[in-house]
Order: sequence, then C-alpha cells, then structure tokens
Amino acid sequence: MRTAIIMGSTSDLSKVEPAVEILKNYGVKVDVRCLSAHRAHAGLSAFIEEANGNGTEVIIAAAGMAAALPGVVASQTVLPVIGVPLSGSVLDGTDALLSIVQMPPGIPVATVAINGSKNAAYLALQIMAVKHEEIKKRLLADREDMERVAMKANEEVIKKFQ
Amino acid sequence: MRTAIIMGSTSDLSKVEPAVEILKNYGVKVDVRCLSAHRAHAGLSAFIEEANGNGTEVIIAAAGMAAALPGVVASQTVLPVIGVPLSGSVLDGTDALLSIVQMPPGIPVATVAINGSKNAAYLALQIMAVKHEEIKKRLLADREDMERVAMKANEEVIKKFQ
Amino acid sequence: MRTAIIMGSTSDLSKVEPAVEILKNYGVKVDVRCLSAHRAHAGLSAFIEEANGNGTEVIIAAAGMAAALPGVVASQTVLPVIGVPLSGSVLDGTDALLSIVQMPPGIPVATVAINGSKNAAYLALQIMAVKHEEIKKRLLADREDMERVAMKANEEVIKKFQ
Amino acid sequence: MRTAIIMGSTSDLSKVEPAVEILKNYGVKVDVRCLSAHRAHAGLSAFIEEANGNGTEVIIAAAGMAAALPGVVASQTVLPVIGVPLSGSVLDGTDALLSIVQMPPGIPVATVAINGSKNAAYLALQIMAVKHEEIKKRLLADREDMERVAMKANEEVIKKFQ
Amino acid sequence: MRTAIIMGSTSDLSKVEPAVEILKNYGVKVDVRCLSAHRAHAGLSAFIEEANGNGTEVIIAAAGMAAALPGVVASQTVLPVIGVPLSGSVLDGTDALLSIVQMPPGIPVATVAINGSKNAAYLALQIMAVKHEEIKKRLLADREDMERVAMKANEEVIKKFQ
Amino acid sequence: MRTAIIMGSTSDLSKVEPAVEILKNYGVKVDVRCLSAHRAHAGLSAFIEEANGNGTEVIIAAAGMAAALPGVVASQTVLPVIGVPLSGSVLDGTDALLSIVQMPPGIPVATVAINGSKNAAYLALQIMAVKHEEIKKRLLADREDMERVAMKANEEVIKKFQ
Amino acid sequence: MRTAIIMGSTSDLSKVEPAVEILKNYGVKVDVRCLSAHRAHAGLSAFIEEANGNGTEVIIAAAGMAAALPGVVASQTVLPVIGVPLSGSVLDGTDALLSIVQMPPGIPVATVAINGSKNAAYLALQIMAVKHEEIKKRLLADREDMERVAMKANEEVIKKFQ
Amino acid sequence: MRTAIIMGSTSDLSKVEPAVEILKNYGVKVDVRCLSAHRAHAGLSAFIEEANGNGTEVIIAAAGMAAALPGVVASQTVLPVIGVPLSGSVLDGTDALLSIVQMPPGIPVATVAINGSKNAAYLALQIMAVKHEEIKKRLLADREDMERVAMKANEEVIKKFQ
Repeated sequence: MRTAIIMGSTSDLSKVEPAVEILKNYGVKVDVRCLSAHRAHAGLSAFIEEANGNGTEVIIAAAGMAAALPGVVASQTVLPVIGVPLSGSVLDGTDALLSIVQMPPGIPVATVAINGSKNAAYLALQIMAVKHEEIKKRLLADREDMERVAMKANEEVIKKFQ
Repeated sequence: MRTAIIMGSTSDLSKVEPAVEILKNYGVKVDVRCLSAHRAHAGLSAFIEEANGNGTEVIIAAAGMAAALPGVVASQTVLPVIGVPLSGSVLDGTDALLSIVQMPPGIPVATVAINGSKNAAYLALQIMAVKHEEIKKRLLADREDMERVAMKANEEVIKKFQ
Repeated sequence: MRTAIIMGSTSDLSKVEPAVEILKNYGVKVDVRCLSAHRAHAGLSAFIEEANGNGTEVIIAAAGMAAALPGVVASQTVLPVIGVPLSGSVLDGTDALLSIVQMPPGIPVATVAINGSKNAAYLALQIMAVKHEEIKKRLLADREDMERVAMKANEEVIKKFQ
Repeated sequence: MRTAIIMGSTSDLSKVEPAVEILKNYGVKVDVRCLSAHRAHAGLSAFIEEANGNGTEVIIAAAGMAAALPGVVASQTVLPVIGVPLSGSVLDGTDALLSIVQMPPGIPVATVAINGSKNAAYLALQIMAVKHEEIKKRLLADREDMERVAMKANEEVIKKFQ
Repeated sequence: MRTAIIMGSTSDLSKVEPAVEILKNYGVKVDVRCLSAHRAHAGLSAFIEEANGNGTEVIIAAAGMAAALPGVVASQTVLPVIGVPLSGSVLDGTDALLSIVQMPPGIPVATVAINGSKNAAYLALQIMAVKHEEIKKRLLADREDMERVAMKANEEVIKKFQ
Repeated sequence: MRTAIIMGSTSDLSKVEPAVEILKNYGVKVDVRCLSAHRAHAGLSAFIEEANGNGTEVIIAAAGMAAALPGVVASQTVLPVIGVPLSGSVLDGTDALLSIVQMPPGIPVATVAINGSKNAAYLALQIMAVKHEEIKKRLLADREDMERVAMKANEEVIKKFQ
Repeated sequence: MRTAIIMGSTSDLSKVEPAVEILKNYGVKVDVRCLSAHRAHAGLSAFIEEANGNGTEVIIAAAGMAAALPGVVASQTVLPVIGVPLSGSVLDGTDALLSIVQMPPGIPVATVAINGSKNAAYLALQIMAVKHEEIKKRLLADREDMERVAMKANEEVIKKFQ
Repeated sequence: MRTAIIMGSTSDLSKVEPAVEILKNYGVKVDVRCLSAHRAHAGLSAFIEEANGNGTEVIIAAAGMAAALPGVVASQTVLPVIGVPLSGSVLDGTDALLSIVQMPPGIPVATVAINGSKNAAYLALQIMAVKHEEIKKRLLADREDMERVAMKANEEVIKKFQ
C-alpha cells in the first residue's frame, strides 16, 4: 500500500504533516513531495509519471491561493486525487477552495475542508479500504474508538453541568 | 462492482442522472435512491446499513441548501462518500458547497464542484479502479479519447480563426 | 421546565456556557450534552428520543463548520430546535451559518447569530414563556432592566461628551 | 391559538402566503399585516402592542434588503419572533439574511432560510405545540406523512433506475 | 450648527470618538447618545423627536451586526442620516454594511465605509456646508492642507527611494 | 436649487432616470451628465469645476463595476457626493458597492443601495432641506403620504386574508 | 507582431472572440487555440514551447471555474500572460477570478475583469506598444476617439434631459 | 529602462518595497511615488503626464479599500498599468481586488494577487522583456534558479519524511 502527498510550498509542511502521520500509523508507505504546479512544473510531471507506475494508490495534493496543484496532478493520472485547500493568503483559503473544487467535467479532484489534511488521510484510507480488507477492519475499529471517545467526552460534559 | 447514488429530493433527479449514465456505461451496478437526511432519516440509515453489507464500493450523495446528506451518510460508513453540492436555492449552491466540504476531522466527504455529478461518477470510477484493473484500463483509454477530442476541437478553432 | 443544549465538540464548551447560565438563572433545568452528528450518531439519536419523552420543551444545538447537528436533531423531533452557528474554522462561522439556516421545507431550525448562544437561551425562554406565564413575567421585567441599563449607559455617554 | 405574520411590502405577498396557508390549515388564527419597519413605523408599533395583549403566541416577520422588520418587532415584544429573509434585491437575500440573523444579545430573532416562509409556519407550530398538545399530535402525524411521502418518492426513483 | 451622533452600544465608543472630535474641532455642537434600536427603542424615538425640533442638521448613526439603528433613525426624520457600519462581530462589519446600505426606496441612509466614522464627520460637515458658508471655506482650506500633507509625504517617499 | 447627476455610461440611463424624475418633481434643477471617470477624465474634471461654481448643492454619481466615478468626483469637490452602485456586471453590483463605499478618510461618498437611485434623490433632497425650508416641508408631507399609502396597503392585506 | 489566445473550452468561444477582433484590427497576428490545462495537458505544453520560440509577444488565456489555464501557461513562459476569468459556472466567475489572480510569488498572471476579453486585448496592445511605436500611436489615437465618443454621448444625455 | 511605482498611502510602504527591490535588482530605474487618487488628484495627474513623456515603460499602482488609484492612472496613459490590491481594511483586500480588477472596456488594469507586489515587479519585468532581450535572458535564468530552489526544497522534504 502506497500513497503520495504533494504540497505546493515548504511553508505548507506543518499543515500537511498530520496526514503523513495518520497514513504511516496505518502502515501505509507515503511519498512526501514539495512540488509546486507553477514553480516545479517539470519535476511535478516526472513525479506523477513515477507514481502512475510504482503502485501508488491515492495522491493527496495540498495547496493555497490559486492552488492549481491538485487539478494539474489530476490531469496527469487516473489515480484518485484528494485536494486540500490551504489557508495562508489574506483570503483564508476561500481562494484555494474554489480553485480546487470547481474542476471541469472529466478530471475530478476529491476536495476536503480548508486545512483538512487529517480528513485527506482518512479519505485516502477509505479509498484504499475498498481494495484492502485489513485497512477497512482498522477503519471500522477506529470509528468505534472515535465514537467511544465522543461518548466519554459527553459523559464528562454531563458531569460538569450537573 | 456496485455503487450507490443518493439524492436528497426528487427535484434533484436531472442533476444526478448524468452520474448514473456514466457509471452504467462502465458496467457498474448503481443503486439510485432518494432519501433526505432530514425527511427520511430512518430510511436513509437502513439503506446505508444495507450498502455497508452488500458489496457497494462507493456512495455518491447529492444535496442542495443545508445539504447534510453526504455528511450524515459518511458518519455511518467507512466506504468512500462523494458529495455533490447542488444549486437550487437562491444562494446557487454556495450554501451546499460549504455544508458538504467543511466536514470535521475523522469523517471525510470527497467533495466535487457545484452540480458536478459527472465528476462524482468519474471519481467513483477512479476509486474503484484502485481495485479493479479493467476500470483503470478503460479510464486510461477514455482519458486518451478525451485528449483526442480536445485536440480535435483545437484544430477546429485553429481553422476558424485562420 | 426542561431544555437541552447539545454541542458538537468539547471545544465549543466556552461558547455554549453563557446559554446554560442564562437558562439556569431562570430556574430552567438544562441537560447539556456533547454529541456530534457525525461522530456520535447513535448516541445523539438515543438522546433525542429521550428528550422527546421526558418533558423537554426546547432543544438548543450549537455547531461549527459543516454544522449538521441542529438539522439532524430537528429531523428527529417536533420540539422547537434552536441552532447556534459557531465560528472556529478559518471561515469564521459563515460555513456553519449557511449549513444551519438553509434547511429544506418541513424541518425548520430557528437560527440565531454566529456565536449567539445568549440569544439562543433568550429565544428558548421566549418559546417556553408562551406556555409558562412566570417566565413571561420575568422576561418582561428583564427587558425593562435591559432598557434601564441601556438608558443609564446613555446618560454616561452624554456626560462623557458634554 | 393566534399568530401574526407581518411583511415589509406588498411585493412580498406571494412569498408569505405559503405560511398563511399552513397555519390556517392547522386551525390557527393568523393576523396578516403589511407594515414596513421604515415606512409604517407608528402603525407597526401599534400592531405589536395589540399583539402583545390579544393572545398572539408567535409573530412571523418577513422582509428583504436591509430587513430591519423582524428585529424591530422583536425589540417590542417577548413573544417568539420568527424572521424570514426574502430575496428580491440583486443580492438575492444575503443582505436580508445577515440583517435578520445577526441580532445583538438580548433580542433574539429565530431566523429561517431565505424565502423559507413554509418553515417559518412549521416553526411557529412547533413553538405553539409546546403548549398545545393537539398541535403536537398533528405535527407528529404530519412528520410521519412526510416520511411516508419521502419513502414513496424513493420507491419511484428505485423503479425509474432499475 | 448642531449634529447628533448615536451609537448602538458603549462598546462602539472608541470607534465613534474620531467623528466627535472632528465635528467639535469645526465648532459644531454634537449631541452624543448611546441608544440601541433594539434595547432602547422608546428612548431612541424620544431623542429623534427632540432632534427633529432643536435645530439638529445631520444625524450620524453607528452600529454593528444587524445594525438596524441608522435605518430606524432615518424612518423617523427627514434630516440626513449618515450610517457607519461597525466591525465587531466575526463577520467584520459585512453584516452591518449590508444592513445599513440596502435601505428600501423612500428612506435613505448615507452609508460610509466600515468603521468610517471620520468620513461620517466629514460628510456631515459637507452637508452642513451647503447652508453654512463658513464651514465650506474651512473644508476647502482643509482639503488644500490634506493635499499639501499628501504631497509632502510624496516628497519623503521620493527621497527614501532615491 | 441645483443638483447634478453623473452616470458612468449611457447603459446606466434607465437606472438613473428615477432620480431625475424625483428631483424635477420637487422643482430642483438637475444637470444630467454621462462622464466616465476612466473614459472622460478631462471632461469630468471640467464639469466638477463648473458645478463647484454654479450653485450646485449636491452631486449624485452612479456607476457599475470598478465604479471609481463617485470617489473621483468627491476628490474634486466639497459638495456632498452621493454614490449609487449599479448592477450590470456578473457580480450584480457587489463590486460597485465596495468600490464606492470603502472610501479612505477625508473624502467621503454617501453611498446608497445597489441600484438605489430613488434613495439617492431623496437623500439629495434631505440634504438640501437642511438649507431650504420649503423642501423640508414637502419631504415631511411626502413622508406622511408614504405612511398613508403604507397603511392603506396594510388595510388591503388585512381584507385579503380575512 | 504576434500574440496567442488560448481558451479552455470551445464553449468559451463567443467570450473570447472580441479580443481576437480587436487584435486583428490592429494588424496583430493572433494564434487562437482551445487547449484545456486539464484535458489537453501535453498539447498545451507543446503550444507554449512553440510560442516561446516563434516571436509571440503576449499570451492571453481565458478560462472558467477552477481556471488553472492562465497560471499553467505562465509557469512555462516568461512572456507576459494575461488571464481572463470567465463566468459560466453557477458562481458567475468568482471561482475563476480567484483561481487566476491569486498566483504565488514568481509566476504572475495579469488578470482582467470577469469576461473582460476586450480589456485583455487592449492590455496586450499596451504591452506590445512598449516596443512598437506604431501601436502606441494608434492606441493614443483610439483613446482620443474613445474620449470623443464619450463626450458625444454626454452631449446626447444633456439634450435628453434638458 | 524605467518604471514607476505609485502607492496610495505611506502606510502601504512596506507592502510595496519588495517590488522596488526586485526591479532595482534587475537594474531598472524605479520612480517611487505616494500619490492618492483621492487626496493628491492634481499631483497624480502631473506625475502621470511626466511618466508618459520620460521613457517610463510600465507603471505599478498599489492601493487598498476603494482603490481607485490603478484605474485612474490607467485612464491617463497607454502605458501598461499593473494594479496591486492591498489588504488593510477589515475586508482584507477583497474591496481593493474588485475595485481594481473590474475595469470597464477600453481601460485595462493588469491585476495581481492581494498584496502581490512581488508579482507586480515580475510582471513589469516580463512586459519590459518583450522589448529588452537582456531582461528576458535574466528572467529565464531566474526561472531556472527558481526551479532549482524548488527541486532542492523537494529533496529536503523527501529526506525529512524518509
């Protein structure tokens, strides 16, 4: 199981790291790259071509502002591409959200929330789980944990206000 | 290969049909449902439970306005859920876009463009292609066709303006 | 007299507490819960069913981002549901406002201002006052106080600028 | 059981009528008025004073553009006030939505969707149902009908795509 | 020469003071009041009636959020009313801007920039200058000063970058 | 009594005419001009200079899109300048509204609603009424008429729904 | 003198034609192409490489929705690239505007108004005029014409309202 | 080679300086000015006239809020004018962006990102490079550097996550 995470700029590193952690935690190999669609055009194409042939199953692309990265990646692969709009400009990621989600017919990008790299990782896992039963089992177990944690938080809130 | 498409209201039918066509055209079984998160709460839960057990691989959920549908579906499955924000209110789908894409950590929805049901279908196919080599081959062939059509349109534009 | 306040996440606690205080101050019993529509789906349904049967008269639901909580609550009860959009994402609550207010016909949510939990409490009291004369009396007295405070602030402003 | 519906302009009539119909259909007396907060200031105050004393239980106020009406009504009563933002200006009701929902602490307006007069009526009924058991029973029955209609629409959609 | 400045809340004081200073500096009498359209409804009407009869020539009204104040003032006078939208909510004054500027035909509010109380004062002076030649002279002199200051700043910028 | 109305383009004519009518109806002389800030720069400056010296008391400037016109006029006069943002671009006047209302300190533009030329005329009249008692009297009479018309519309609405 | 105009889709043809006409009218050679950044990735790169070597002086790129085209072109050339955001999606070109204008440092796109292809042509001419004196002369003459036309329109408006 | 950079206010200095540095670094003469379109109307016109005659090849104009500056400059020259929308008001530069980019046909402004003064400088260089081969060579070399830096950052990211 192999995925790739591409960010547009090293200033996006801290916003992307939660996704890397989640994926590694699931035992998924992650190729992390910093390849701007605008400033590393050739390097980006080379990497996508590589990913198309090395067993990569999902690509996550995170970018801010004009945020062409996820769409440019998507135009060069039929692997599922997950786009993460990043805040960072004065427009707080609204620019990146529209640049990423409003793709023309034929070239989809699976867009998650602004700065939503955690969900990008979970979505990648859910996509791989279609094929890999062991990931599905773990996701189901984690959902149960999530609910248990949520219900425990609820218990504490109940106590607090009694 | 099996997918499900859920819409929130019968008035969304024409906006959802292009997705059904594309998927059927690829030989994928599609369970189409009209189950509002708000008006058919129990029926929706029953259907998701069914989908979780019958080999469905991807769920597409399309909704307008408050558009809770994709998120509510996603909270009850670890199958990949694709959300299609629909225009229809006076806000032209901006309300639905934010309601669908801004999901909290742990429960992702793969959001496509407003009224982007075609891309929802292609994204579903790309997700299934991770597992099913035959879909991947056809997607690659279709991408080549798409490029051929695009280059032919270019030829005509060149002629027109010579 | 009994009300319930549900928040989507413990990080919303401080934004919700003013509502709890106002209601308790009026002698109203408040069941406070932390039950995400997405992460505690079953627990939420169980609580709403309970509220439907235990004499609860109004439910306040506060949530940020995709904010499906108030609508999901409203779909399972005919008690009046008051929705409080919370800021918290980079979109400052605009996402939550549209997700909460743009409900489809048949399932209303009474939406108040972004972070407006105080007004959620006052609205709950005004709703209960339709039935409970003692709350109405106190609300009327409090409005008079509010006006007295406002007019006294005015006196001080007059003095300041004389 | 008595309610009032106030609109800001006769051009809003068709957008307000669905609410009148629903309320009458439930056997609720409805006082319909056209009293602009800006052009009928005194007449509006007189009517609110009247409503405060004649057993009115909920007031619905619908307005477009600057839409001060619901807030001005709310400032003169402790009855629950439901605000309906209306489209009509070039801003499609966004102006009215913000003007109505962003009320300051102490004077709440229960805001529904843009042009959401149907939900304003249902919310009024749910508020009155806190006191009037017969309305609650009918609302619960209507919800069951709504779900039945929704599930039947679902059946038809299933057939259509088989 | 007499003007009035009304703010909706004492928390707006610091945003309103620059207007008071400019007007006093021009020798104009300023009645400063804090009278919320929602919390001091009667007191506000009393003050407007007073202003209508005591020689007040312009009224400035500053408010945030739903910001009904300027419109409510305008509905009770034919004196020119200048509206100042204030930031303060999470929406940074966009709510107040639309609430103030989108007035219906017949009841205008002269709207200035968000937090633009300085310009509210200058606009008030320009309005009074239609009648009072001495204010016009001083405004013309001040404009010349303003231009002189601007050209001097330009000189410094030129030096800095030589 | 003399006013000027400047529009940026002849395509704005029909949106500006209601203002001309109202002013003429009050016996005010109106100089109507079509002088774009961008395409008739010199002609515009010449006209403003003329207006500054010929007894003009208020200038109304209406423009769409980048809408520099009102601000450019305001920078060359201390007469009160009323700005009317016009819809016309795909942005429905939002662009013009922000371009007109967000003026820097020192050069105010009295902004009215998008396409609000009627209110521009009424505001001009209210400004002139500070000096001209006869206009004030007529404005007060017209307000009474407006209220009478409003109350009559209310009567008809009451009848309709009885 | 040679320019290129690239559009993303043949559906943009009518919005792009005014630019072609203006440029041809100035005697400038125009290579018109339809090459989507997403669907004709390789063809686009080939064309930009060609343009980089054949004496093309300016490239105009027009696109709607996610509108990556102008930025992708800009990343492969140091020729000035002019971006034209096109309406066409339900978001009326706001998506395209932000996708085009919010470019990261190092790769500029000269953005014009939504659907502003005429201005794209004029901007291209003004850029070429830096080098080509004959274009500059004609632009200056055309500006004078434009002003003459504007002043004549003004004369007609003056007559109309006399 | 000569350019001009005009800012609307000295408070914009730090946002404009990066452009000055880049241009000087390329050996381009830069005339920096602080000339508000609203407060230094005559001085601005004088400077543009000067620039039209002294060999200036590109003008950069940076402004916030109503931001009429770039358009007013563009209306008085056929030199290419680059507009930089500046944040600074509570609207974070959205006001300035729309005021600058939405120019009417005939008078284009080449708009870059909010606070994008670096790209304004690069765009100015790319425009001058149409004429000046030495700038083009340097731009091409700098692009190669930029890509080298980008690929090196990529190497570091790869190492970090290995």
